[in-house]
Amino acid sequence: MKDMPTGALTIVGLGPGNPDQMTPEAAAAIAAAEHFFGYFPYLDRLSLRPEQRRHASDNREELARAKAALAMAAQGGKVCVVSGGDPGVFAMAAAVCEAIEEGPPEWRSINLEVIPGVTAMLAVAAKAGAPLGHDFCAISLSNNLKPWEVIEKRITAAAQAGFVMAFYNPVSKARPHQLGEALELLRRHLPADVPVIFGRAAGRPDEVIRVISLAEAASGMADMATCIIVGSVETRVIPREGDEPLVYSPRSYKGGSA
Amino acid sequence: MKDMPTGALTIVGLGPGNPDQMTPEAAAAIAAAEHFFGYFPYLDRLSLRPEQRRHASDNREELARAKAALAMAAQGGKVCVVSGGDPGVFAMAAAVCEAIEEGPPEWRSINLEVIPGVTAMLAVAAKAGAPLGHDFCAISLSNNLKPWEVIEKRITAAAQAGFVMAFYNPVSKARPHQLGEALELLRRHLPADVPVIFGRAAGRPDEVIRVISLAEAASGMADMATCIIVGSVETRVIPREGDEPLVYSPRSYKGGSA
Repeated sequence: MKDMPTGALTIVGLGPGNPDQMTPEAAAAIAAAEHFFGYFPYLDRLSLRPEQRRHASDNREELARAKAALAMAAQGGKVCVVSGGDPGVFAMAAAVCEAIEEGPPEWRSINLEVIPGVTAMLAVAAKAGAPLGHDFCAISLSNNLKPWEVIEKRITAAAQAGFVMAFYNPVSKARPHQLGEALELLRRHLPADVPVIFGRAAGRPDEVIRVISLAEAASGMADMATCIIVGSVETRVIPREGDEPLVYSPRSYKGGSA
Repeated sequence: MKDMPTGALTIVGLGPGNPDQMTPEAAAAIAAAEHFFGYFPYLDRLSLRPEQRRHASDNREELARAKAALAMAAQGGKVCVVSGGDPGVFAMAAAVCEAIEEGPPEWRSINLEVIPGVTAMLAVAAKAGAPLGHDFCAISLSNNLKPWEVIEKRITAAAQAGFVMAFYNPVSKARPHQLGEALELLRRHLPADVPVIFGRAAGRPDEVIRVISLAEAASGMADMATCIIVGSVETRVIPREGDEPLVYSPRSYKGGSA
């Protein structure tokens, strides 16, 4: 049994979308693999050789995709699962681990590697200044996989404890109202002038980075490809003539309260 | 006045330490700069050309370093400030923004760019599986810049709200006892079997990744170059024969309570 092929599965983060923000480690992993599983817009970013095979799927099919990739690796395939950003942040690495835990014992001996990447909140933060320069948290606003009350509890706890927040998956067609509810909740806990950054396609040609006050933030400013960063009571905005303002969260705690 | 040179300042994230985890965008920014400011171990990672100049400084001198870099850029220099990991996460981007806010008005017109990178918690998480696969937060344990009570409040809030936590700057010679206090606090709010990951030099030849239960976690397992990830009550450990266990936080909320 020890001689059977165990294959290899590599889970790769492509970064936020600009090819110059994908690491050489990720590029080498892609060059070495034979089969590619992922949400089709991510597979479309790859420049594959003719013999490299694409197995595209829709989003919300992560667990089925993970199982198909593991089954192929267990048969000896050199398999690559791709995620945008970092595969460990609200992405495919957790889905693959979940499939391994639920799956046949031999999946645990597949040679598994996770290649990190630049996750969306880091790319958006870089464009705005340094809003994540102090303690922060990352919350997925999707309630496909957790109750909305849990999300509300976490937003409230983060606001009260002084964390800057990054929101992933802020809206979708099936969930048009949640971001609005989250912003209402934030307005109950934070001052009206706390800065909110809506970042879309950071680092790509169609990039849009918008800085606005919490009072003026509205759910229509985001789509499912937007990452939103909500400042804390200590986050600062520096106006710049003829340029976007700089937003940063000071390293030092000044004792501001919400 | 509009014709005076305003120079350029680029704040670059080198990634966790493995050169293959630095983005091409960061490499291009380094190639284009003339003057390099940073903590000396980070500058030691660069392969500079003879005409490129190093201005190394010690850590805990971030604000002075930022001001020196801005002053040189304001005189027309092509200046690069380097950080390990991502410059926006407990690193130089916030120090530069702070210096701009405090500094002379002309510093606001310096052409400023922040180049994101793979921050330590992403590299450590990738080596362990997917511990950051659900909502998480990042907390600096250094109380050089904030009171310890604020750190305790945030750890408690994060544990009670179900966030996975990544700790940066867990110990230093000046702060040998804080990590132990943080672990004691966590043990009051989380079950003894919650997994804790101590990750040092992830992706480098001297990498050490250690997975241990919260009950057994001890401050002596970390130094100032360690990033620690503390699971939530829902984080899972998958044993693997002849290999390290996989640690992941499921995408779905299962309703576990601390």
